[in-house]
Amino acid sequence: MSLSKKGLAWIIPIGNELLIGRIVDTNSAWLARRLTFLGYRVIRIVKVPDDLDEIIEEVKRGLGRAEVVLTTGGLGPTYDDKTLEAIAKATGKSLILNNKALKMVEEFYMKRDLPMTRERIKMAMLPEGSRPIPNDVGAAPGVVIELEDSILASLPGVPAEMKSMFEKTLQPILKTRAPPKKVWECSVEIRGVPESSLAPFLEEMARKYPRSYVKSHPKGHEIKEPILDVRVLSSGEELNEVKKMSEKIIDLIIKEAKRLEGRIASKSCKAPD
Amino acid sequence: MSLSKKGLAWIIPIGNELLIGRIVDTNSAWLARRLTFLGYRVIRIVKVPDDLDEIIEEVKRGLGRAEVVLTTGGLGPTYDDKTLEAIAKATGKSLILNNKALKMVEEFYMKRDLPMTRERIKMAMLPEGSRPIPNDVGAAPGVVIELEDSILASLPGVPAEMKSMFEKTLQPILKTRAPPKKVWECSVEIRGVPESSLAPFLEEMARKYPRSYVKSHPKGHEIKEPILDVRVLSSGEELNEVKKMSEKIIDLIIKEAKRLEGRIASKSCKAPD
Repeated sequence: MSLSKKGLAWIIPIGNELLIGRIVDTNSAWLARRLTFLGYRVIRIVKVPDDLDEIIEEVKRGLGRAEVVLTTGGLGPTYDDKTLEAIAKATGKSLILNNKALKMVEEFYMKRDLPMTRERIKMAMLPEGSRPIPNDVGAAPGVVIELEDSILASLPGVPAEMKSMFEKTLQPILKTRAPPKKVWECSVEIRGVPESSLAPFLEEMARKYPRSYVKSHPKGHEIKEPILDVRVLSSGEELNEVKKMSEKIIDLIIKEAKRLEGRIASKSCKAPD
Repeated sequence: MSLSKKGLAWIIPIGNELLIGRIVDTNSAWLARRLTFLGYRVIRIVKVPDDLDEIIEEVKRGLGRAEVVLTTGGLGPTYDDKTLEAIAKATGKSLILNNKALKMVEEFYMKRDLPMTRERIKMAMLPEGSRPIPNDVGAAPGVVIELEDSILASLPGVPAEMKSMFEKTLQPILKTRAPPKKVWECSVEIRGVPESSLAPFLEEMARKYPRSYVKSHPKGHEIKEPILDVRVLSSGEELNEVKKMSEKIIDLIIKEAKRLEGRIASKSCKAPD
């Protein structure tokens, strides 16, 4: 595998409803958090409309840059569900009837005495060489394709279906490929210090400890009542080492906040859930 | 202007917190909805980490494809706020101290008897030729740059600041440039019909009426109790014409749903808010 792709992930949420702003995409944040905790670094989340050429372009781009490419949405029976056709074209594969997928779809509709229509069969037409992911919530199977130097998976856009597929099928596969990594996060809420007053110190911390991610989020009003949510996320091979690292940095930040006459409202450290 | 860019919009939310999934990005959907109602077609929402080269790459890509490019986030005082530096580099401009922006930032901190530090001055360093957008909620000004064939604007990531800037400053500018367009949306909730049963008819409608956007969203369970939220969004130059179009299509869909023994739970038509 190209070294530059190793450990990188790319998420492509698909659907016009996202681009017209009718739906807030909560799937991406959920997936990004899971991928991060598995040890992957998500470098892009690219929302793209239900347009064949646009999806092909983004899937190709993702496969060129990242080891793990996940799409969400566009797997259903309707005319605007184009994900699998785009993936087939982007990877140079044919779209063929997958017997395992067909069985999953048939079972789903048979339970309700509904016939297999052209639209329902469409959900079982997968790119050659792909594996269907069972959908225990809805009708459309997900898809995973292991390529030479990337893994490409397509999950449904309905959050419950997406989450169930990720947890039951995709996560175990990704775990075996993921770079070994432990993560530990410390956070503290600081009141009474404007973000810009603490900024030079946070910058110093970030420079000094490049394997930790130091971030402040203003929650109150910068002047009237500044509230800062400061987080330190450390990652590495050894849990003990990343614990020590996060806790050391958060304590230094607390010390500096107190020097600036800030009040410490809460501090906590944990493995991010 | 390149004809292919006209009326297209591109949104670039910036920030590591989005790529590690610590924050659900609600800004993009809000902006996408506003842009859509102004008559623009949003063709991409690309979340990118706080990395100078990655931001430059995405801003250049957006400017090459769309008439309107909006970024959110990365305008603050901290070391990882890199948006303006990236925009300067992407557009081949220098980053210079903008006097109007400096006044805005100074006023903000003077009210609290806080001195101007290097971090605070940084918020007034804008790409040459750009106009600062006043921030009546937080400290960092927004930025708008009118380029030869695109308009590029950078808004803060804090939703209240972003929304206020968009409504007070950016929307009036975009309105004068926007393609003339009226939008009308009809929706209906159908119970008891699986999405895949209605799909062929929706496909037919979408083919027959290409200026209307027909979409169904399953809300219930496809088999146990299917609930479909069907929407028809029509756009065009004349309000009367788009009203008639949306209402005609939704009535045809309701007729088909009844034929499939569906129950109509609610129907409404309105200018999308």
